[in-house]
Amino acid sequence: MMTPQITTSKRLRSTPFTSRVEACGVKGYTVYNHMLLPTVFRSLEEDYWHLCEYVQIWDVSCERQVEIIGPDAQKLVQKMTPRDLSKAKTGMCFYIPLCDETGGMINDPIAIKHNDNHWWLSIADTDVMLWAKGLATGMDFDVQICEPDIWPLGIQGPKAEELTARVFGKEVNDIRFFRYKMLAYKGTEMLVARSGWSKQGGFEIYVNDPDLGRDLWDELFRVGKDLNVGPGCPNQIERMESGLLSFGSDMSFDTTPFEVGLDQYVSLDARIDSLSITALRKRNPKKKLVGIVVNEQVDFSDNLIYQDDFVIGEITSMVWSPRYQSQLAFALCDLSAISSRTHVHVRSNDGLKQARVTKLPFDFEALGLKG
Amino acid sequence: MMTPQITTSKRLRSTPFTSRVEACGVKGYTVYNHMLLPTVFRSLEEDYWHLCEYVQIWDVSCERQVEIIGPDAQKLVQKMTPRDLSKAKTGMCFYIPLCDETGGMINDPIAIKHNDNHWWLSIADTDVMLWAKGLATGMDFDVQICEPDIWPLGIQGPKAEELTARVFGKEVNDIRFFRYKMLAYKGTEMLVARSGWSKQGGFEIYVNDPDLGRDLWDELFRVGKDLNVGPGCPNQIERMESGLLSFGSDMSFDTTPFEVGLDQYVSLDARIDSLSITALRKRNPKKKLVGIVVNEQVDFSDNLIYQDDFVIGEITSMVWSPRYQSQLAFALCDLSAISSRTHVHVRSNDGLKQARVTKLPFDFEALGLKG
Repeated sequence: MMTPQITTSKRLRSTPFTSRVEACGVKGYTVYNHMLLPTVFRSLEEDYWHLCEYVQIWDVSCERQVEIIGPDAQKLVQKMTPRDLSKAKTGMCFYIPLCDETGGMINDPIAIKHNDNHWWLSIADTDVMLWAKGLATGMDFDVQICEPDIWPLGIQGPKAEELTARVFGKEVNDIRFFRYKMLAYKGTEMLVARSGWSKQGGFEIYVNDPDLGRDLWDELFRVGKDLNVGPGCPNQIERMESGLLSFGSDMSFDTTPFEVGLDQYVSLDARIDSLSITALRKRNPKKKLVGIVVNEQVDFSDNLIYQDDFVIGEITSMVWSPRYQSQLAFALCDLSAISSRTHVHVRSNDGLKQARVTKLPFDFEALGLKG
Repeated sequence: MMTPQITTSKRLRSTPFTSRVEACGVKGYTVYNHMLLPTVFRSLEEDYWHLCEYVQIWDVSCERQVEIIGPDAQKLVQKMTPRDLSKAKTGMCFYIPLCDETGGMINDPIAIKHNDNHWWLSIADTDVMLWAKGLATGMDFDVQICEPDIWPLGIQGPKAEELTARVFGKEVNDIRFFRYKMLAYKGTEMLVARSGWSKQGGFEIYVNDPDLGRDLWDELFRVGKDLNVGPGCPNQIERMESGLLSFGSDMSFDTTPFEVGLDQYVSLDARIDSLSITALRKRNPKKKLVGIVVNEQVDFSDNLIYQDDFVIGEITSMVWSPRYQSQLAFALCDLSAISSRTHVHVRSNDGLKQARVTKLPFDFEALGLKG
C-alpha cells in the first residue's frame, strides 16, 4: 500500500524554504512544532552517505525559538532546567533538559544566551512557549515570552565549515562548538552557531528574514557546487549512529534525564533555583535507554523488547545502518530487567531473535563492527 | 509534482485505529497534537457528499484530553477561559476559548465536566497540558494534570444517531446536544457525547481501551452496512460550509475570541476569576474573521485579501464547495478596512478578482446560493 500523503494547511506551517525544498524534490515530510520538516530527498541511505562525505543544507525552521526577554529571563530559564546556567555567558549555547517538578522532561532545547535579560530556547517538538508562559504568568515573573519569526537553516557535513566561511567570511572558523557569533548576510546580522542535529559538524544560521533566507539558500548552493552541496535533513541513520536522541520518541514527559543518559546535563550538586532539582535528587530511575544491535536485517513484528517471553521494554527509534550492516535501535527498558544484561530478544516475523544490548552512544569498535 | 509522503515515527503518534483507517484506504494525513489525523479517503468531495447523506466513523484520537483532577480543578479551568463556568454541571460539555492574560487565544477545546474536581479539556492542536501545568505549578494550585490515554471516535452524519443507538442502546437518543452519558460497551463504560466537528449531527465516543476501540470500530461497520456507513474524517468542505473554525488556521495566539466571532463564549459581565477577562474587557479588536465567496473556481496566486492593490487581510482556510459551486474562504482582515465592506479582491493567476465579503457562518440563502 502507498504511504498516505501529507495534507498541508495554515495550521501546519510551511517555511520560507518550502519552495526551495520542494524544487529539490523532497520525498517525505514529518511535522515538528506544527511545521513541515523534510525527512528524505533521494533515499534515506543516499542522503546519509552524502551527509557523511559532503555538505547539506537543511530546512530546520521547525526548530522554533521561544524568546524570553525581561529582568527575570535568566531566572525563568534556570527554573525550567536542572542544568546550572549560572556561568552562562553571551555567545554560548547549552543543551538543556527542561523538566517539571517531578523531574519528567518537557523538552530538550538548545538554550542560547543573548544576555541576562534575553534568552532563546531552540526547541524540540512540544509547545515550550505555553509551558514558559504558564510558569511566568503563575509565578508573576517580569518577562515577555513569544515565538519570534526565526527560521534556522542547517549547514551540515564535513564540508560545512568551508561552505559557511565562503558566505559569512573567515570569522566562521573561530566559532567554537556550541558558540555563536552575530554575522552579517547582505547587511543583516544573523546568529551563526556551530551546532546541528548531526555529528558531521556544521552550523545553524538563525535566519530572521524570509527573502534573505531564500537568497542565502540559493547562494549556498551556487558557491558550494564544487563541494557537492546538496539538500538534506536530519537523517535517521546518522543521528542514531551518533546517539542523538529525539524528544517525543526516545524521551517524553514521563522520562527523567537520567533514564535517557543525559546525566551530564543535570547539575545535582549546584545551588540552583530549578523546579525539578529536588525531585531529581530523590527520584530513582525506573527505566533506561539502551542501544540494541542485530547484525542482520530484521522485519520487526512489534516494537517491544523481550527477555524470553516477558516484555521488558519498548523500541523508541529504529533504523538499518548500511555502514555497519546492522539493525540499530534505541529502547527504553525496565531498569531492573536490563541492568547488566548483554542480550535481549526482539520479535521478528520468524519469531524471537537475539539482539545485543549496548550503551549509548554506540561504540561500534567495541561491538566489533567496522564502518 | 507528487505531494510528499508523511514519515511516521514514535514522536508522531499513530492511534488504536490506524490499522483500521489504513485498511479503509486512507489517502492523506495531517498531524494534530503530535498524532495522525486522516484527511481524505475517497476524495474530499466524495467524502463530503457521503458525510452529508449517511454516517461516517472518524478516528479523531488526536483530540487529546487534558485531564485536571483535584480540589482546584474547577478554579483552574475557570482561570483559563473567559467563559463563565459557574453553572456547569456533571454531564455537560462546553466549547470554551482558552486565553492568556492579554486575551490572545491558546486553544479552543471542549471542556467536559465530570465533577467539580475532575475536568477534561478535549483540545485542538496546541499542548494545552503544558499551559495548564505551567499555570498550576506557578500558582500552586492543588491539581494533578495529565493527558490520559483516551482516543475519541467520531460517529458523524445524519444516520449517526441510528447507528450509535444500535450499539449503545436507546439511551443514546436522550443525550442532548453537548451533553454526555457514560454508557457501557462490552461492559466497559465510555463517555458518549452528542458532539463532533461537523454540523451533520453525531456523537463522539471517548474510547478508553484500544482493543475495545477496535472492536467498536468493527462493530459499527458491521451493524451499519444498511446505513451505508463509511470511513471519514473532518471534512474541509463541510466544516467551512458550516462555519466551524480551526485553531492554528483561523485563529491563533494573537487573535482574541472577539476577532473570530466567538463573542458568545466570552462572559464579559460575569464575575469570574479568569486570567483574560480584564484584558478582554479593554482590548479593542484589530482584526475580523469574515467569509469570502467567489462564484467560480479560482486558482489563487497568494493567500492575501486586497482592497484594490492594498493588502487588508489574509486567507486562513479555503475550499471549493461543490454544493454551492463557489470558492469559499475564511479571511482574517484588518477591522477598519473590512468594516461595512461588501467586496474585496483576491489575486488569481489572471490578476485581481472581485470577491464577496460575508459574515460567518455563511448564510447561503442570503447570498443567493442554492444547495
